[in-house]
Amino acid sequence: MRKIISRRKKAGLPPGTLVHVGEKKQEKSKITIIDYDEKKFHEKEAKDIKECFPFSKTKTVTWINIDGVHDVNLIKELGGHFGFHPLLQEDIVNTEQRPKMEEFDDHIFIVLKMLYYDEKIKEIVIEQISLVFGPNYVISFQEREGDVFNPVRERIRNGKKIIKLGSDYLAYALIDAVVDHYFAILERLGEIIEGLEGVLISDPKPETLHKIHRLKREMIFLRKSVWPLREVISLLQRTETSLIKRPTKVYLRDVYDHTIQVIDTVETFRDMVSGMLDTYLSSVSNRMNEVMKVLTIIATIFIPLTFIAGIYGMNFQYMPELEWAWGYYSVWFVMLMIALLMFAYFRRKKWL
Amino acid sequence: MRKIISRRKKAGLPPGTLVHVGEKKQEKSKITIIDYDEKKFHEKEAKDIKECFPFSKTKTVTWINIDGVHDVNLIKELGGHFGFHPLLQEDIVNTEQRPKMEEFDDHIFIVLKMLYYDEKIKEIVIEQISLVFGPNYVISFQEREGDVFNPVRERIRNGKKIIKLGSDYLAYALIDAVVDHYFAILERLGEIIEGLEGVLISDPKPETLHKIHRLKREMIFLRKSVWPLREVISLLQRTETSLIKRPTKVYLRDVYDHTIQVIDTVETFRDMVSGMLDTYLSSVSNRMNEVMKVLTIIATIFIPLTFIAGIYGMNFQYMPELEWAWGYYSVWFVMLMIALLMFAYFRRKKWL
Amino acid sequence: MRKIISRRKKAGLPPGTLVHVGEKKQEKSKITIIDYDEKKFHEKEAKDIKECFPFSKTKTVTWINIDGVHDVNLIKELGGHFGFHPLLQEDIVNTEQRPKMEEFDDHIFIVLKMLYYDEKIKEIVIEQISLVFGPNYVISFQEREGDVFNPVRERIRNGKKIIKLGSDYLAYALIDAVVDHYFAILERLGEIIEGLEGVLISDPKPETLHKIHRLKREMIFLRKSVWPLREVISLLQRTETSLIKRPTKVYLRDVYDHTIQVIDTVETFRDMVSGMLDTYLSSVSNRMNEVMKVLTIIATIFIPLTFIAGIYGMNFQYMPELEWAWGYYSVWFVMLMIALLMFAYFRRKKWL
Amino acid sequence: MRKIISRRKKAGLPPGTLVHVGEKKQEKSKITIIDYDEKKFHEKEAKDIKECFPFSKTKTVTWINIDGVHDVNLIKELGGHFGFHPLLQEDIVNTEQRPKMEEFDDHIFIVLKMLYYDEKIKEIVIEQISLVFGPNYVISFQEREGDVFNPVRERIRNGKKIIKLGSDYLAYALIDAVVDHYFAILERLGEIIEGLEGVLISDPKPETLHKIHRLKREMIFLRKSVWPLREVISLLQRTETSLIKRPTKVYLRDVYDHTIQVIDTVETFRDMVSGMLDTYLSSVSNRMNEVMKVLTIIATIFIPLTFIAGIYGMNFQYMPELEWAWGYYSVWFVMLMIALLMFAYFRRKKWL
Amino acid sequence: MRKIISRRKKAGLPPGTLVHVGEKKQEKSKITIIDYDEKKFHEKEAKDIKECFPFSKTKTVTWINIDGVHDVNLIKELGGHFGFHPLLQEDIVNTEQRPKMEEFDDHIFIVLKMLYYDEKIKEIVIEQISLVFGPNYVISFQEREGDVFNPVRERIRNGKKIIKLGSDYLAYALIDAVVDHYFAILERLGEIIEGLEGVLISDPKPETLHKIHRLKREMIFLRKSVWPLREVISLLQRTETSLIKRPTKVYLRDVYDHTIQVIDTVETFRDMVSGMLDTYLSSVSNRMNEVMKVLTIIATIFIPLTFIAGIYGMNFQYMPELEWAWGYYSVWFVMLMIALLMFAYFRRKKWL
Repeated sequence: MRKIISRRKKAGLPPGTLVHVGEKKQEKSKITIIDYDEKKFHEKEAKDIKECFPFSKTKTVTWINIDGVHDVNLIKELGGHFGFHPLLQEDIVNTEQRPKMEEFDDHIFIVLKMLYYDEKIKEIVIEQISLVFGPNYVISFQEREGDVFNPVRERIRNGKKIIKLGSDYLAYALIDAVVDHYFAILERLGEIIEGLEGVLISDPKPETLHKIHRLKREMIFLRKSVWPLREVISLLQRTETSLIKRPTKVYLRDVYDHTIQVIDTVETFRDMVSGMLDTYLSSVSNRMNEVMKVLTIIATIFIPLTFIAGIYGMNFQYMPELEWAWGYYSVWFVMLMIALLMFAYFRRKKWL
Repeated sequence: MRKIISRRKKAGLPPGTLVHVGEKKQEKSKITIIDYDEKKFHEKEAKDIKECFPFSKTKTVTWINIDGVHDVNLIKELGGHFGFHPLLQEDIVNTEQRPKMEEFDDHIFIVLKMLYYDEKIKEIVIEQISLVFGPNYVISFQEREGDVFNPVRERIRNGKKIIKLGSDYLAYALIDAVVDHYFAILERLGEIIEGLEGVLISDPKPETLHKIHRLKREMIFLRKSVWPLREVISLLQRTETSLIKRPTKVYLRDVYDHTIQVIDTVETFRDMVSGMLDTYLSSVSNRMNEVMKVLTIIATIFIPLTFIAGIYGMNFQYMPELEWAWGYYSVWFVMLMIALLMFAYFRRKKWL
Repeated sequence: MRKIISRRKKAGLPPGTLVHVGEKKQEKSKITIIDYDEKKFHEKEAKDIKECFPFSKTKTVTWINIDGVHDVNLIKELGGHFGFHPLLQEDIVNTEQRPKMEEFDDHIFIVLKMLYYDEKIKEIVIEQISLVFGPNYVISFQEREGDVFNPVRERIRNGKKIIKLGSDYLAYALIDAVVDHYFAILERLGEIIEGLEGVLISDPKPETLHKIHRLKREMIFLRKSVWPLREVISLLQRTETSLIKRPTKVYLRDVYDHTIQVIDTVETFRDMVSGMLDTYLSSVSNRMNEVMKVLTIIATIFIPLTFIAGIYGMNFQYMPELEWAWGYYSVWFVMLMIALLMFAYFRRKKWL
Repeated sequence: MRKIISRRKKAGLPPGTLVHVGEKKQEKSKITIIDYDEKKFHEKEAKDIKECFPFSKTKTVTWINIDGVHDVNLIKELGGHFGFHPLLQEDIVNTEQRPKMEEFDDHIFIVLKMLYYDEKIKEIVIEQISLVFGPNYVISFQEREGDVFNPVRERIRNGKKIIKLGSDYLAYALIDAVVDHYFAILERLGEIIEGLEGVLISDPKPETLHKIHRLKREMIFLRKSVWPLREVISLLQRTETSLIKRPTKVYLRDVYDHTIQVIDTVETFRDMVSGMLDTYLSSVSNRMNEVMKVLTIIATIFIPLTFIAGIYGMNFQYMPELEWAWGYYSVWFVMLMIALLMFAYFRRKKWL
Repeated sequence: MRKIISRRKKAGLPPGTLVHVGEKKQEKSKITIIDYDEKKFHEKEAKDIKECFPFSKTKTVTWINIDGVHDVNLIKELGGHFGFHPLLQEDIVNTEQRPKMEEFDDHIFIVLKMLYYDEKIKEIVIEQISLVFGPNYVISFQEREGDVFNPVRERIRNGKKIIKLGSDYLAYALIDAVVDHYFAILERLGEIIEGLEGVLISDPKPETLHKIHRLKREMIFLRKSVWPLREVISLLQRTETSLIKRPTKVYLRDVYDHTIQVIDTVETFRDMVSGMLDTYLSSVSNRMNEVMKVLTIIATIFIPLTFIAGIYGMNFQYMPELEWAWGYYSVWFVMLMIALLMFAYFRRKKWL
């Protein structure tokens, strides 16, 4: 089960102290550098963080991607070179941040949540992605190597439109890749919901309930990641900074629309899951009622009959009926009549 | 069942890539052109999108209606001619947009949702309608050929007031036609609700519950289409653009009022459907309780009687009552008394 | 049952087309004119709408009241003379408007909802009242002749303070009369709620539930009329028009307070009705539980006893107890003991 | 039971007509005057309202307190002398006002609700207190003589700090006394809640439920008084009037904090009462389930045993078991075995 | 159990009267002084509050920490020396304040809530911490000696960055220490929730329900402390005062983020606890249903069998079956058949 919260090791430390909070998801941090403008393109994997520093002075757009944020010294060195505030550095290594956007004088810091659906544990896995972008660089931090940024890499390599626009457009492209991935999660959840709805009608079981409750819980975590994202992108759009140029703002409006759509869908899912819970409970109770009703009716029909049989099982010396020739058959007849009448009564009352 | 979400084919593509998202609802796109001013009127069906381009230079109002948005090249060519932003083109072919309004320098882009009630599958069908209007043209995109814009066409042909006003009024007329159609859906839903309410009182069954749940779900989708519409029209009213002239704004206020009325009615329906769910559940439980109560009472009356019959069925050698001349009749008398007393007790306690 | 929505005949018509929407509640429209200032007073019933027109040029305040809005031509003629926008005329004859206030250059248009409690069908009846007032006239439209404006008429006839103030004060007085009438509805509902609460404690029945559900539904419709009213009066207060003079604004603040009080009471009623629903359900379930418990206990006490009787009803050849002299009495004693012990046990466990 | 609403006698009267609405709680109105500044102090009880008028011209602060608002003429005379708007006078005698604050040119009008917990009827009693204060006077109106203002009176008599500040501080002191009294109500309700919680765990009964429902209803009325109060005091703080001087504003901030604290506590109470309702319902249902379970198990164990006894009570001529020497004892053994096995089974399934 | 409210001793006192409200948690107040700048460092424990006064004139930052706020005279003397408003002094000794921030001309007053999880009573304990800071001093008030400020003390002693920044940074550091401690509470609650969730699936009992209800109640109190905190820090950030310098504002943004994260987690917990309640109720009801179903089925199978046995226990003189040679065995066969058929029926209907 996902840990709800785990910050203990931080308590009591002064603000700005770099401590990695969260699971260590990768052995060694991996640094890749892509440097490009409309004419040049350069890509390499760096062994040491210092290899990145020369790129910070060129006019070309430099994208430094770091997979693995547990190496506190690496972040410190990088932060020192680019002049990141200690609190910013602290936020990068603390993977329990809320999505947020912070503006500094010459760079903007963005925290996002990347969502994967882990088919093995059947749970949504949340990872933190941090972006810092300045006039001619974008630095992205992931908790572990993933393939979410590959399409962007591909577009740069193929010399698409992206190379004509600056670092702000690159930052947008990365955010867009993350948000686009949300739709995959939503589709997966949509499938699960549709599957559960089918089961709900045909054959509701206690496990179905359990699955609905788990789905509901996943929604809680999903919302927690998605709602603040909206605010982040809205802030990016409205912020009065020279770091984000006008053409990019049109694209931010587009990704904002996507975020709203994601939120809308999450809310629709929540409503649907709530509805499923109601359906489950009322269908189970319906079924139970049906069982109880039929069983009780059977019992009720036989109770008076058994009483009559009991009567003629009494050992009184003088019981005239016992001596009648047709006594036994009369009793059977009476019993049948009673059973039929009760049956007819239940029928008319629509209890059967 | 309606697909909740289906964007898979888009993931990883660069923004502004035109990919048709949604069901393909029509074989070939159909293009119709209406060109008019107070004096002239021209109407034709175009085979190729290029036939529209000459009209974009005239001073008359040109209305290009395109049924079917899966033909990506057509949209690209059209968008290229009129100077639409790639993201705008992308939004037209992606039929899973949220209703929205976007202002560009020389045109306004509006996405609406058209609702039909499909009597066959007993579900609301949602289609996307996009509008782009500039100083002297309106281009409308529908997913398939429909009759919702026919009244507007008729009014232009008959040379009504509409021909004296510009493209902004035409755009308004199209929005108004869409919103007016919402009332038809609401009426249909109103009828379904009233029908269900009748059934609910006379004869509630599990299917009734199922129908209520489906209605509740339809409401979820209806709200998702209607709420953002309000914002769209409010934005159109408040926007400071020369594209929308003052006389049209009065009409936009009117269509805004209609939207509010639609939202009001949807909310009322939601409240009513919730109330129906409560009524169903409490009426079913009332009925169940009644059944159980009567049956249990029958059982309870006979249990002591059967016990007494059992007593005199015992085979003890010395049981004085058995030898009494009136023993058998006394037992019957005692049993009747017990039954009557219990009956009276239940009556007084109002359990019967 | 009240129709939830009924606009069908309008679909597809151009905006500004006058079509009466709603039930026709009166055969012929009735026109009454009151013309007054501090010195003069003139009152008459007009046969034709043209008789009103001369009054529009005088400096005295003219109040034209029209009962019955189904006569589309009458509204058209009147609207034409006073220069009302076609959409305004359309709104007057469409009785399914939401309460609203619209400001035009030289007149203000207000739509209100008048509420009656119809004792025959035990339902709130909603009627639409429209007001248009300009610098020296007020025109009021009612769906049918009613007595709600009589007190205002009386005050004018008696030459009260009202004749010293202009048309804006007259419009206020009419709104105030409508809002005042709301309190009568609230009192009636309050009585019904108090009555139901009494029944709820003494003798809850399924009909009680039905009544509560109907009350809940009435609340839904009541809210729909009352909430937008607040906004209407708030707008009237804040609007920067020369049509409403400063002394009248103090009175508008007063009627605004009344509206808030109405809303407050409606919300309190809603809370109370919800609470009643809970009370009903838990009292019914309490009672049911009590019934089931006592009955089950009776059954449980007799089951072991019947078992013992059954034992000694067996026909084994060798059953020593049967031959004991005191066997029969011993069995009775054992049975009594068991019954008493079980009774004591149930008592101690507080199940009885 | 408290009347929910009672305005009937007002319907149809022109605005500004003085009619006392509410219960008449005191026979004769009592007028007390306190006149003071830093040097002088004068206190007297007036027989006629005219005795107050001379004080209105002095520079000293004059506090006129009137207990009983049913004497319409008194209010009219007073209002006439001080120049109160007819609507203000109307609001004083109508004790069903919502808490509100209204600013006039040279005085401010405040309506508050005073709450008492009446131990006899075990209900919160609501009374209206109105304040009007001008540059050198405060007039307070209570529905009946109470002791809530005594501490303020005492402080003036003892020549405390209060005498150095003006009429605005006196008005603040009166509001503060009212708000302070709210905490007494909250404490009383807190005790009731704590008491009920104890009962809820040890011995829940239907009356407990009844008490919880009554508490819930009291909360509804409490909220209705408290929420608008917040707005009133916030308005007083923010209003740009020369009537409230800067030092007093610091004190108003303090009373505002108290109001927020009252609201907070009321909301906490609401949450707790809701929680209690849940606890009650689940504990009752838990108990019921337990009863039903044990009883059903007893019944179930005896049913097969009784069946076996029935078998050997049959009168077939050839039933070999009946003739066995140990038949009777074997049957007892079999029965015991069955009983034990079922008992063990229930145990293992944790149903016992 | 925690007292919900306890202000009684205050009622009727004039505002600004110092009365200690709350439990007295420590015998004697303890005063510690830390005085530092970049070069000097001085620390001592004061016996009398007057020892602090000389420090208020130096240019160094002085931090006075007072443990225990029941000594009203001490607060009065201190407040008098530093010029604190009487209401501020009152708020320090009243430990039932809501978190708030108040700005005065030359100092800022902050009330916070410190949370501990008391493992003995298994409840969250709330304590009030007040801060006043001026240009060169910070005075902190705690209800009793605690260790929450120790890390800050340590950092000053070790001459960390903190000594280079002014009193505003010190105030921030104290707030940060308090907020950081919230995470410990959240972790503890997270553990409890996870523990309960495990129990909920494996073995739900009435005590589990009791624990969930207690957790829900703790949440109510937690929210009451946390929500206003957000507002406090937001105000600190936005306030236009020279007391808070720009570098500190960046740190305040960080602590604001932490507060939002705390609120987020509390809300997530609330949702999870609600979900747990649902899970508990439905799992208990599931189990109950299962019990009832199996038991009822057993009963139902035996009822017809017992009836048959009863039939052949009747004493009619002429009952042909009784004389059949295989009569007894036939009856057994018939009974077995009935039992098997019913069993098969229940199976097919999925009731077993």
